Amino acid sequence: MKQAIVARVDIGMGTGKLAAQVAHASLSAYEDTGERARREWKGGGQKKVVLKGDGESQLFELADVADREGLPYAVVRDAGHTQLDPGTVTALAVGPGPDNVVDKVTGDLSLL
Amino acid sequence: MKQAIVARVDIGMGTGKLAAQVAHASLSAYEDTGERARREWKGGGQKKVVLKGDGESQLFELADVADREGLPYAVVRDAGHTQLDPGTVTALAVGPGPDNVVDKVTGDLSLL
Repeated sequence: MKQAIVARVDIGMGTGKLAAQVAHASLSAYEDTGERARREWKGGGQKKVVLKGDGESQLFELADVADREGLPYAVVRDAGHTQLDPGTVTALAVGPGPDNVVDKVTGDLSLL
Repeated sequence: MKQAIVARVDIGMGTGKLAAQVAHASLSAYEDTGERARREWKGGGQKKVVLKGDGESQLFELADVADREGLPYAVVRDAGHTQLDPGTVTALAVGPGPDNVVDKVTGDLSLL
């Protein structure tokens, strides 16, 4: 079981900002995850990988694939108080889910 | 309501690694948070700040303060599969809790 979080690297977020958006996406997708998958993922150490994304349209396309695969997912938009314009899409979390199913969605992306 | 996550910047984590540790800490502290505080925090957009930490002993001292203030918190140790030695303390999440109480714990730290 793992969760993949895709963070946009094309919008110049600082490290702390990016980390907060990743955490936001991670928690939101987790909240949409069934109890059994949650337990299994946490029991295995809540494995997470953070991957490079390069645009809003890419994140939405990956979210569509996650949806078709039946995985929980969450797209995060920034409130825009700092650094970014309000509503900017910053991150997508996919899973937790089985590694091979998550890889169908994000397997082509590079580690951040 | 906010959650503060302190990430160590003294151990050379890459951006993706750091973000994963921050997300891990955030979720773990959230899981120890009461239902009412969870709802209030999420209703306000699950505000998070990511702060600079500079050592394991600092994170444990802040965790003690959080404990005395009655806040949920979580210290994360890395499994050590990549980049770090197994068991390395990487991040501390404090809250969600009222802004002024969280600031009693982490108010002196700088934004990452």
